[in-house]
Amino acid sequence: MNTKVACIGTGLIGGGWVVHYLARGYDVVAWDPDPGALPRLQRQIAAAWPFVTQLGLAPGASLENLRFASSLAEAVSAVTFIQESAPEILHIKQGLLKEITTFAPRDCIIGSSTSGLSMTQLQSDVHFPERIVAGHPFNPPYLIPLVEVCGGEQTSRVAIETASAFYRQAGKAVIQMDREVPGFIANRLQAAIWAEAMHMVAAGEATVEQIDAAVVQGPGLRWAIYGPCMTYHLAVSDGGIDKLLQKVQEKVYMSNTRASLPDLSTQLRQRLVQGCLNLQGNFSHAELIQQRDQQLVNILKCKTPTP
Amino acid sequence: MNTKVACIGTGLIGGGWVVHYLARGYDVVAWDPDPGALPRLQRQIAAAWPFVTQLGLAPGASLENLRFASSLAEAVSAVTFIQESAPEILHIKQGLLKEITTFAPRDCIIGSSTSGLSMTQLQSDVHFPERIVAGHPFNPPYLIPLVEVCGGEQTSRVAIETASAFYRQAGKAVIQMDREVPGFIANRLQAAIWAEAMHMVAAGEATVEQIDAAVVQGPGLRWAIYGPCMTYHLAVSDGGIDKLLQKVQEKVYMSNTRASLPDLSTQLRQRLVQGCLNLQGNFSHAELIQQRDQQLVNILKCKTPTP
Repeated sequence: MNTKVACIGTGLIGGGWVVHYLARGYDVVAWDPDPGALPRLQRQIAAAWPFVTQLGLAPGASLENLRFASSLAEAVSAVTFIQESAPEILHIKQGLLKEITTFAPRDCIIGSSTSGLSMTQLQSDVHFPERIVAGHPFNPPYLIPLVEVCGGEQTSRVAIETASAFYRQAGKAVIQMDREVPGFIANRLQAAIWAEAMHMVAAGEATVEQIDAAVVQGPGLRWAIYGPCMTYHLAVSDGGIDKLLQKVQEKVYMSNTRASLPDLSTQLRQRLVQGCLNLQGNFSHAELIQQRDQQLVNILKCKTPTP
Repeated sequence: MNTKVACIGTGLIGGGWVVHYLARGYDVVAWDPDPGALPRLQRQIAAAWPFVTQLGLAPGASLENLRFASSLAEAVSAVTFIQESAPEILHIKQGLLKEITTFAPRDCIIGSSTSGLSMTQLQSDVHFPERIVAGHPFNPPYLIPLVEVCGGEQTSRVAIETASAFYRQAGKAVIQMDREVPGFIANRLQAAIWAEAMHMVAAGEATVEQIDAAVVQGPGLRWAIYGPCMTYHLAVSDGGIDKLLQKVQEKVYMSNTRASLPDLSTQLRQRLVQGCLNLQGNFSHAELIQQRDQQLVNILKCKTPTP
């Protein structure tokens, strides 16, 4: 039997999930209380389908595998997995999750697309809360691989593991978080850069146009390849991140930021250095730089200017 | 006559500039006081040359166009432009710039690769300080297009314009800053994300591996295409950044960040909204999303896993 997923809420993110699951060859049952939801979803699918097709559809993938349910109860009654993507408003999501858990098979895992609400709060008044996890995607979910998986206080370990396995099977890059962190990981990092950008615009230090150009022509290209830790590790040819942290401590580096810096304790330095060494693995510094440069060339060759 | 550039200081960044200018078909005179500089530079060029070759060399580009000078005076005596890339230590750069300005032709513009020092301080004790600008590149300078150009108090408008034109001619994406902002733009944004990453590692909220994976599989892919402002503008299908800012104000969004947020004044909101509308130009929201998706597909197709 084909994997069958319910997508509850079909706005920008929920609709993006519909596209993703369809592209993976799954059966999808969608539901949204908004009367205009279906035509809007159809427009979104029509716009996105050529792109997932370019990336390669799974065997059996078809737009025919989508059904729009007429009720929530019908939508969740016989599915393998439920993806909830309601508006990011606590009481709305709480009410919807309670309804979902009323009608869904008891053992069906529910992933919430919440980007910033607490799973512990979201699951506080549902049936069998142990099977609800946050499965936070990035826009557009049919192209950006990342899903952050995180449980609340009542979520079972098994549900977290099962949801992670489900998302991996569905082609996503899963980060399974060990504890509930408000905003998860990537949104915290995004919020930091966005806060600094707003400060710079407010202070007249830079314009929106300068900020976006700076990222797109500069560090953004690298962040598509290496994250912030490895970027700095590779930026210091002789000594890597350990030497960079020395410079931070001596205030030769990072002295220009509005952001507060954590105390650079021995433990933090060890964690940062060891993490980079783990990522480096058996590759030499020179080999990692070669890999980075090849990927940068690939990206630069396929990039066309955007606003 | 061929454009002739002096690269003073040939560490990771200075050597990267050498590669870039050679790839653009320029004559390059390099100088570095370190006795081991030449073989190290040769290794860097050998490693990087295949990548700039893939991107396309300018007519006449050749490794034969590099000369390693035996003295600073000789290196800067007859060139069109001087790129200074000494270690990021104020008194070292100040001393070097003074020497450079002693020997360089009086009308020769000098771009400093400084990433965080004050141009006003750097030019405080040189000959003809009006011709020194910061020309801050991103690692590796032979692949990442961005150069931030900024003057100090004594820098002339003409020098800033001339340096910007020179860098653009040399194939760089130039952001010409109107005022001296410590850390320029992109490093301020990088510092913000890095500070949050360190906080998360210090607090045990995320590991280095999770942070880097989150960026590379998530927002980093988008930042190669759209900067933080346009990313948010496109994330809200109905209302764009204006609606997002409303959510920030209502603390529905961005409530999970350690970073302080600026006061969301009417002026700031107008600047942010207008900036995004300027970048959007005549494209519809749907067209921008199509452009983003096509570029994401291109990047995803050429990406291979990195640590």
